[in-house]
Amino acid sequence: MIEKPYLLFLGDAPDRLAAKVAIGINEWRPEFAVGQYRLDGCNADLHIEDISIAEAVAKGAKTLVIGVANRGGVISERWKPHLLEALNAGMDLASGLHVLLNDQPDLVQVAQEKGRKLFDVRKPTVDYPIANGQKRSGKRCVAVGTDVSVGKMYVSLALHKGMQERGKKSSFRATGQTGILIEGDGVPLDAVVADFMAGSIEYLSPAQDDDHWDFIEGQGSLFHASYSGVTLSIIHGGQPDALVLCHEPTRAFMRGLPGYKLPSLEALRDLSLTMAKTVNPNCKVIGIALNTREMEDKEARQIVDETEQRMELPTTDPVRFGVGKIIDSLISL
Amino acid sequence: MIEKPYLLFLGDAPDRLAAKVAIGINEWRPEFAVGQYRLDGCNADLHIEDISIAEAVAKGAKTLVIGVANRGGVISERWKPHLLEALNAGMDLASGLHVLLNDQPDLVQVAQEKGRKLFDVRKPTVDYPIANGQKRSGKRCVAVGTDVSVGKMYVSLALHKGMQERGKKSSFRATGQTGILIEGDGVPLDAVVADFMAGSIEYLSPAQDDDHWDFIEGQGSLFHASYSGVTLSIIHGGQPDALVLCHEPTRAFMRGLPGYKLPSLEALRDLSLTMAKTVNPNCKVIGIALNTREMEDKEARQIVDETEQRMELPTTDPVRFGVGKIIDSLISL
Repeated sequence: MIEKPYLLFLGDAPDRLAAKVAIGINEWRPEFAVGQYRLDGCNADLHIEDISIAEAVAKGAKTLVIGVANRGGVISERWKPHLLEALNAGMDLASGLHVLLNDQPDLVQVAQEKGRKLFDVRKPTVDYPIANGQKRSGKRCVAVGTDVSVGKMYVSLALHKGMQERGKKSSFRATGQTGILIEGDGVPLDAVVADFMAGSIEYLSPAQDDDHWDFIEGQGSLFHASYSGVTLSIIHGGQPDALVLCHEPTRAFMRGLPGYKLPSLEALRDLSLTMAKTVNPNCKVIGIALNTREMEDKEARQIVDETEQRMELPTTDPVRFGVGKIIDSLISL
Repeated sequence: MIEKPYLLFLGDAPDRLAAKVAIGINEWRPEFAVGQYRLDGCNADLHIEDISIAEAVAKGAKTLVIGVANRGGVISERWKPHLLEALNAGMDLASGLHVLLNDQPDLVQVAQEKGRKLFDVRKPTVDYPIANGQKRSGKRCVAVGTDVSVGKMYVSLALHKGMQERGKKSSFRATGQTGILIEGDGVPLDAVVADFMAGSIEYLSPAQDDDHWDFIEGQGSLFHASYSGVTLSIIHGGQPDALVLCHEPTRAFMRGLPGYKLPSLEALRDLSLTMAKTVNPNCKVIGIALNTREMEDKEARQIVDETEQRMELPTTDPVRFGVGKIIDSLISL
């Protein structure tokens, strides 16, 4: 287990999205973060205290969590002196990057000398089975998106929290590094070998009580050429009873794919349902989560209302308006 | 590069399907095989000469290829003495099994002593990129199936051979161990890490002359819960201009998924085209390949004709009737 609390390392994040690991931890487990640590040129801000490594240690921080990702998932040479300083000051390091802390000879050497640990949550530690497609008991909800980074993890965490508040049985099932760092457990799906992807989701979400909901964190998008296979393995491994559609209305092009326009919510609904019904003919779309961060309040309210009327599905922005109506929809399923 | 010619090792294959690697090599590159090597109880037969390891060496064989797979992909202890004999006799070993030759201490030791090589074609040796979705020049054809093991590799190899015979530019792009051993190159897709699947296909099928066709070997099925993510990454990484639908008309249930019925060819056509059009809006379905091995001649002819009329697409069994009409369809595209 990764020791808490954390110092959240934002490095030289070029924009807010690049720091989404740190943002997620701070939002869902604010009690885990003693402060943020930023380098010159960092364009992300959690609006928590900027502190030094020495101050973090004084505040009890046990682990520096790399809360920033860059394309390719490498460990920047610019970060190295700061990571070494944290190890020397007595903190462990945790990372969800593709390139592993445990593959950096300098970090490994200092960690060994100081008796510190290097946690690579991206690296699978389980030999997952090949999916068998057998029906499991319990209920499952998967969030699917018109693109990557449209709020799939957020809505799943919000639905789990809302169900807990209503006294219902539920779990959040993490499939990415942020989710795993938030939940403390999960499947680092993007590092799982192709043949075992769907099987890892079956493993992650085993048979449950009939009235227990698993909120399985979505990844990628069926429409995103780089990651669509990962998305489909979640749908086919997850056997969803319910799908939530996620969308960012102001985004013109798919993230990382210039020239690719986002699909419509109708196209997302139809394709996701077709895919889900292969493994669960009773699957239903139960709501829509819009990410309206780039909009003013009035405009956000308007697009939520318009979308709800057009799609005839409970629609919300989980951040602005909560997920109460989607939970109502889930419970009445 | 794996040195040719090969001695094809069938081991104690319990049935013909278990020897499909050897069958594929012998069918598409008969000039590579100096003979077959079988143990007592082997129920597969390539109908080529049964020879000893000494005889194979005398005939110039450079590599013993493990042409048999058992469930789990392990290297049987019963095979070991024969594999060691081949190394001692001066041959390299090549394998596409999940369990690696290079993880067997006894084989590694003898290979080192004798200066021989152990080729594990299942293991990726390239750091594949994340897919960028950019349009590449040249033409691409992907075979998709209603299930796994319905003849996708066969039809792709047959189309490549047919194009060569007509003097057209084409390549076969292997994505599985048999295909890699046949072609001598390719991507072992089922062992690629999730995030890089589509990128590995972009790498495998780079920009080409405008009139060059790449026949990209399909894997899995969009409808197969265990492997659908792999299939989708081939479609999205492959940017197909043409799809061939593959089906085995007598199969009642999906292979390895009891209780899952096969989808219709119509469902396969619609879903595959929807997926392909995300990356190439001009993609077309250009033909249907039926695997009628389990049928009599008359029955096979009948179902091919009926399917062609019903689907309004050139339809054949590549084994019985060749792929001429699908090539006509491709060339007229």
